[in-house]
Formats: sequence, C-alpha cells, structure tokens
Amino acid sequence: MKLKTFFPLFGFVALLAISHLSIAQAPRPPYVVSPKVNPDKTVTFSYLAPNATTVLLDGNQFGSANVPMTKGENGVWSITVGPVKPDIYPYGFKVDGTTINDPSNTYLFPNERFKASLVEIPADSPAIYALQNVPHGSVSYQYYPSVEGSTGTVVVYTPAGYTKETAKKYPVYYLISGTTDTEETFWKVGKVNLMLDNMIAQGKAKAMIVVMPYGNPLARIAEQTGKDKPSDVMSRDGEDALKRIKLFETDLITNVIPYIEKNYRTINNRDNRAIGGFSRGGGQTLRTAFNNVDKFAYVCSYASYISPAEMDKSFTNITSNPDKTNKDFKLLFSGIGTEDFLYKGTTEWENYLKDKKINFKSYVTDGGHTWMNVKKYLNETLPVLFK
Amino acid sequence: MKLKTFFPLFGFVALLAISHLSIAQAPRPPYVVSPKVNPDKTVTFSYLAPNATTVLLDGNQFGSANVPMTKGENGVWSITVGPVKPDIYPYGFKVDGTTINDPSNTYLFPNERFKASLVEIPADSPAIYALQNVPHGSVSYQYYPSVEGSTGTVVVYTPAGYTKETAKKYPVYYLISGTTDTEETFWKVGKVNLMLDNMIAQGKAKAMIVVMPYGNPLARIAEQTGKDKPSDVMSRDGEDALKRIKLFETDLITNVIPYIEKNYRTINNRDNRAIGGFSRGGGQTLRTAFNNVDKFAYVCSYASYISPAEMDKSFTNITSNPDKTNKDFKLLFSGIGTEDFLYKGTTEWENYLKDKKINFKSYVTDGGHTWMNVKKYLNETLPVLFK
Repeated sequence: MKLKTFFPLFGFVALLAISHLSIAQAPRPPYVVSPKVNPDKTVTFSYLAPNATTVLLDGNQFGSANVPMTKGENGVWSITVGPVKPDIYPYGFKVDGTTINDPSNTYLFPNERFKASLVEIPADSPAIYALQNVPHGSVSYQYYPSVEGSTGTVVVYTPAGYTKETAKKYPVYYLISGTTDTEETFWKVGKVNLMLDNMIAQGKAKAMIVVMPYGNPLARIAEQTGKDKPSDVMSRDGEDALKRIKLFETDLITNVIPYIEKNYRTINNRDNRAIGGFSRGGGQTLRTAFNNVDKFAYVCSYASYISPAEMDKSFTNITSNPDKTNKDFKLLFSGIGTEDFLYKGTTEWENYLKDKKINFKSYVTDGGHTWMNVKKYLNETLPVLFK
Repeated sequence: MKLKTFFPLFGFVALLAISHLSIAQAPRPPYVVSPKVNPDKTVTFSYLAPNATTVLLDGNQFGSANVPMTKGENGVWSITVGPVKPDIYPYGFKVDGTTINDPSNTYLFPNERFKASLVEIPADSPAIYALQNVPHGSVSYQYYPSVEGSTGTVVVYTPAGYTKETAKKYPVYYLISGTTDTEETFWKVGKVNLMLDNMIAQGKAKAMIVVMPYGNPLARIAEQTGKDKPSDVMSRDGEDALKRIKLFETDLITNVIPYIEKNYRTINNRDNRAIGGFSRGGGQTLRTAFNNVDKFAYVCSYASYISPAEMDKSFTNITSNPDKTNKDFKLLFSGIGTEDFLYKGTTEWENYLKDKKINFKSYVTDGGHTWMNVKKYLNETLPVLFK
C-alpha cells in the first residue's frame, strides 16, 4: 500500500508541533516519555537537554531532592528513583540551576508562582482519589459578575446524575485553595471530583455540588483593569491581609453564592452549605464562616487556624456562647500534619477552642503542608458533610 | 491595631507557596509580574534567575525570536518589546539554552510536547475572542467510556441559558485540536467559548454546544493501562497514522457522540452536527466526515487537507457523485494561511475538489500554522453553522 503522497502531512505536522517556537523543519528530536511509573513503583524521569551541564531531579516530596540525572548519548537526561509510596507528587527538573517543569508531562500543578509537574504513583488497590470505573460527575468552568465590576471565574463539580435527575436539589461545598493556587487546584491536584465520584458510588458520601472559587479577587481585578498586579502572596502586613480576606468574603457571599444558587439546583439553607479550604483558603474559610454563621453549618479548615489574639478581638460572637456555636456548627474540622509548619499555631488554636468549650473535630496526621495531606483531609471530611 | 500574633501565618504561607519544592523558610525572592502588557501595547517580560548566564525571550510569533533580556540587580531579567499586534501569542524564556515557560504567568498553552506561556494583547475595541460583559456559557470536563476499556476525557461548551431553558435542544459542533494539543486547547487557546459567547450575544451565531474530544486515544489507553506510551506525534508511517485516525473516528462515532447525545439536550441529526479541527484534527475531521456522511452536514478543515492520491483511493464516495456531495454538505470549509507550511498541499487539495466539482468554501489569510490563525478560521465558520 503506497501512501507516500500524503505521508509528508504527518511528518511535518509532528515537527511543527514540537518546534512551534522555532523553525518547523528542524531535525526530529528523540521522543521522550516522562515520567514513567514502573510496575515496582520506581519512577523514571527523563528530560531532553543536549546542551545542559547539570540536570537534577527536584522531587523532595518523595525523598528525591536534587538527585543528579545522567545524560544519555541522545542528549536525554534520566534517572530512576524509588520505589515511591503511592500518591500524587509535584516535581521539577533543575537544569543548570533553574527549576522547570517536565515538558513531556501534561499533568501540571495549577499555581501562580511555581509550575511543578505532577506524577501519580498508583496504589495496589485503587486509591479513593484514583480514576475508577464508576459514574463520573463533571467539572465546569463558569464566569460570574464579581467585585468591582470584574468578571470572576469559578469551577463547579456536579455529581453523576445531576443532568438527568432534573428535579433533585443538592447541598453545596464551597472549597477554597491556598495562596497562589488557582480555582483549578482543588480538582486537578486535590482530586475532589474523583474522590466524590468514588465515595458517592460506594455510598460513603452524599451527592453534592462543589464550588471552587478563585481565592485572590484583587489580582483578578488588576488583571482585568490593566492595573499593576499586586503581589499574589499574602502581604506581611496583617491589616492588608485581612482586607484581602474581607474582599474574598464579600465576593463569596454577595456574588458567588447567589450566582450558584441561581444557576444550579441547590438547597439554599445553612444546613446544606459547607465551607472549607487549605492554607490561606483555610483562613478565608474560618473568617468567612465565623462572620456569616447564618450561611454555613459545616466548616473545614485544612492546615490553617486563627490566632487566639484575633479570635479574642474579632470572633467573640463564636466564643461567647459556646452552646449556641456548638449547635450552629454541625462540623468544625481542623486537619493538620505534624510536620506542617502551621502545626504549632493550629495546636494553639485548638487549645484555645477547648478552653472556650467550642466543639471541633481535630484530625492530626503525619506529613507537611502539602496537597498529599489535603487529600487526607478531604477523605476525612467529605463523608461526614450534610449528614 | 496590633495584629502581630497572627501575622506570621501569612508570611509563612507565602514563603511556602513560593518554595514548595525547597525549604519553607528561604528568604523571600523579589515579586515578579510577567508578562505586563503596557498601554502602548509594548509588553514587558520578566524572569527571576540570579544564577543564569543568558536569558532570551523566545517570542518569534510576535517578532521577538531570541531577544536577549537584561539582568537587574535583584536577579530579575527583563525586556520590553513591541508594540505587539493585538492577539494571543505563545512565548517562553530560553535560559542558558533551555526553553521554559514563564513561572509568573498562569496562562499556559495546554500541549503534550511544549509548555509555552501565553500573552494576550488586547485590541482597542474588544476582539471577538476577548472576555466581554455578555452572558457566558460554561465549559465542562467529562469522563466517558472510551475505546478498549479506557476512560476518555472530553470538554464540552454549553451556551449561556443552557441550564435554564430546559426544554430547548441544541446543535453540536465536534471540534478536534492538533497534534500534541489536548482537549483543553480549543478553549484555553482557541477561545471558542468566548467567541461563541460574544457571537451569540450579538446575534451572529446560533446557540450551539461545542464538544472538544482528546485526539489521541492510543496515548490515553497507554496511560491508563501502564503500557509504554506511544509517540504522541503522528508516525512517519502513513499506515500507522491512518490506523490512529481510524481509532479516533471509532471512538468519536461509537462513544463520544452517543455519550453527548445521552447526556445533553442535542438535536440528533446530521443537519445539526458539525465537525471541524485544526492540523491533525483537520485530517481527522475530513476523514471522519467523509467516512460518515450520514452524521455531519458541516465540515471545517482548519489548515489541513487530504492528498489527491488518498482521495482517489479512499473517498470516491465523495467524488463520484458531486451533486449528492454538494447537497449533503451544507458547508465544506478549508481555511489556510499563505505562510502555513501546509499551504501548498491545501491548494492542491482544493484544486482537486474543483476538478471533481465538489463545492467548498476556501478561506485564505496571511499567517502560518498557528492558533492565531485558528481563531480566524473559527471567526469565519462559527457564524455560518446550522443556518
């Protein structure tokens, strides 16, 4: 079978796709597969860089911090590490001192400051966050009218069956990611969608909608108005940080929730609204929940806290009548890792709550301030929401 | 107002977010905003790399190929280029010979081979693909049962009003991206969602659903079965390339379309189905449409073609009865740029169609094999679909 006449189409398209920033007709580079997870749970990382002097694997979250990679004759640097404990980890390559992501891997960590690649090492029996053969919900990107005339972005998970059972209404979990994370992080890294797909299929969690807003409206406003974009990390100035948290709260309460309740089949009362978040999103969660007790009955702090000083100053509404608070909140969850740098502050906060006779569920695990731990916190909390 | 007690929370969270791959307590690096589009349409690019020897801006699609950047005292390299013609462009930084994306920019080109960053230079009056204050549709990520037991991924745009007008049914445009692109590329780079939001609001296009499948099911199967991932670029072997195209066609016809028609309010006949694609996706479009004349009445090739030899061999069903074909296809569109490396092949194909008396709409523009041109092809075709 002679197909030579049209064969060039494919060759050229391939070349162009590879070298879209340079000349289309460059010689074809070696084809790199990276990462490759091997059956024994070792992982082989590869990176094409014929001209580099040193390439290190930057995978400290699985014990491979700055491990030198070896250059092959074809200019591909590679290394095999592990076995690695099943989980989803960020990594990068340090190429002559510059950390970059893995260009062979489409699975990227959505974040405004770093661009890590992600690798999933599957467990022997599928993890609760793994893609399994169960009915799947969908994840939807929405625009909504946000603060100061800006257009906000929000990502929404609806469970399997949502589009069909057109009379059914659902409870809603508002879930806020960490500093410099984006509205994509809780599903692309946290896998909240797959966790719920699996938990709902197994009868372990209630079918719910999850709403993932973008946590830094100031940056969004700057982006859309052409103003100088402010630092996307929280200011060291406590007052400024509080103003930002307040702007987020305003946006959530006055824009996001009404938009969601107008456009989705939601149950619109506090018993059917939960709020949670990681890191900065945990701080936003606690302050938004304590300022709006009428709105949320379930409150989940993943690796965050409020200092006793701020509690005393701003949240006597929560502490002055513990019986009321304990009735109001069907869940006040505080999850933290013993190696998390916020462990000490979280413990202080928890002790403060104990002193004030405020009920809360403390969940302490090993590990640090990571998205591996966020999945553990989700695993603890998703099954108890709205029950 | 003393807020010192809780101030450390923000500082530490900030540091951690920045340096998640290294030690949390590292000194805080300078805050980099990049890219910054200036009012005069010049663009300032910045990149933090205190130890780099050379940093070049890799922006050849806006005339800034390998432009040396200048290192500031704080270790931030920067350059201002332009004015740049309004559009959305890929770019990267070449750091000591290695091309990387811009770590300060969340706007990335979804692709399996390269990881370019994207910059949008706004036009004086908003472009048809710009975010405007009109009712917005939503973009939704779905899993579906795909070929060989794999789980497929597909991205679906539903127009504004879809969730409310619960009796209305919609026509569907199946839209396939290029080699090494992903199912995200047509909305994140091609902006088909915002184009339709604007066109529908202006009465220029019919409200429609757009379905964006992943174009390389073989790679997906490999990913999910732990097999060696095949080259994601099209093989140089014509037969293998055709097999891959056939696998895609099988998946589209037997899995994707039934999934969509089961889960969305679609009008299920050929007059209300369109198929289109860019580059490899254009090749998949033409072959799938010609093999399934009963399925699609609108066919849009964006920078692709079929060789006369393959037409003669495989598609006499299309050419043997031009009157029928001309009645079958309400639109057969061929868009190409004069600088596209597929321009010559496309012209040959168009001449072949002319000889065979097959009607088609030819749209020739300047520019090359780029996503800037894809937006032009979308702009030509979206308004004429389903009319």
